[in-house]
Formats: sequence, structure tokens, C-alpha cells
Amino acid sequence: MSLLEILAGIFGVIGGCANFPQAYKIFKRKSAGDISIVTYLIIFISIILWTLYGIELRNPIIVIPNIFAFISVDAVIIGWFRFGRNNK
Amino acid sequence: MSLLEILAGIFGVIGGCANFPQAYKIFKRKSAGDISIVTYLIIFISIILWTLYGIELRNPIIVIPNIFAFISVDAVIIGWFRFGRNNK
Repeated sequence: MSLLEILAGIFGVIGGCANFPQAYKIFKRKSAGDISIVTYLIIFISIILWTLYGIELRNPIIVIPNIFAFISVDAVIIGWFRFGRNNK
Repeated sequence: MSLLEILAGIFGVIGGCANFPQAYKIFKRKSAGDISIVTYLIIFISIILWTLYGIELRNPIIVIPNIFAFISVDAVIIGWFRFGRNNK
């Protein structure tokens, strides 16, 4: 495993968790009017496809971060439906 | 090139452009108070590392989407500095 692979794996997981602060901010402030649902729906589909691609390559460095991304992006989407939908 | 590779490439680019609607929404409403800068800074670093990893693998399906992601995420970060910073 190369240094770049290790870094990509670690930062991949950190990157996958990136949307947890966004979800936290939405639920804390009960506000998501500035959030673009179009952006998050595209990201959602993209994550599913990257996961399939990573499975095809049998590359856990692609698959594992996307599992974290799936959860954190879901949290943002749920937050938007709760707090952002009526505030376009 | 497999069907999944083609799909991953197309949706990779679409996914890389995902944050353009977010940036557009910020600049149109002149509001970014709900945006988590922590999230976007993590994504920013993650994009740079994914690009390096994709270059190491010589895999354009990883590199090209990240170039689009770099531009669209930059636009959101610029929007946050302009309209979100004083509205935490």
C-alpha cells in the first residue's frame, strides 16, 4: 500500500464524514433554507454509483468512504425535508 | 470500458458539478448562513487528495470529476465567505 493510498483512505473516510457537520448545523439551528436539495440529490446518486464502481474494482478505498458519505448525506437530506423545504 | 465505468464517469462529472446549484442558490439569495464551512473545507481537502490518488492510478474517471468538483466547491466556499461568515 502506497503512502498516497493510505492518505486517500484516511481522508476518504474523513471526506465521507464531511457532511456530518452540515447535518449537525441544520438540526442545531433548525434551518436549512440555504441548502440546495438539487446538490444533495446529485451527490446521493453519485455516492451510490461510486460505491458500485468501487465494488467492481474491489477497491475498499473507494467503497468504505462512500458508506460514510451515504449516511452523512442522508442526514442532510432528512434535515432539508424537515427544515428547508418550506423556506426556498 | 465497462458499463459501470462509463456510468461512473458520466455521473462522476455530474457529481463533480453537484455544488454548482448550491453555489447558485447562495449567490442568488445572498445567504449562506446554513452552510457549514467545516463540511466544505473537508470536501476541499478531500478533492485535492482524490485527484492525487487518481493521478497515481492514472485513472481519468477519478481525476476528471474532481476537477469539476474543485471548481464548484470553490464557488460555494467563496459564497460562504461573502454571505455566510457573519451569520453563524
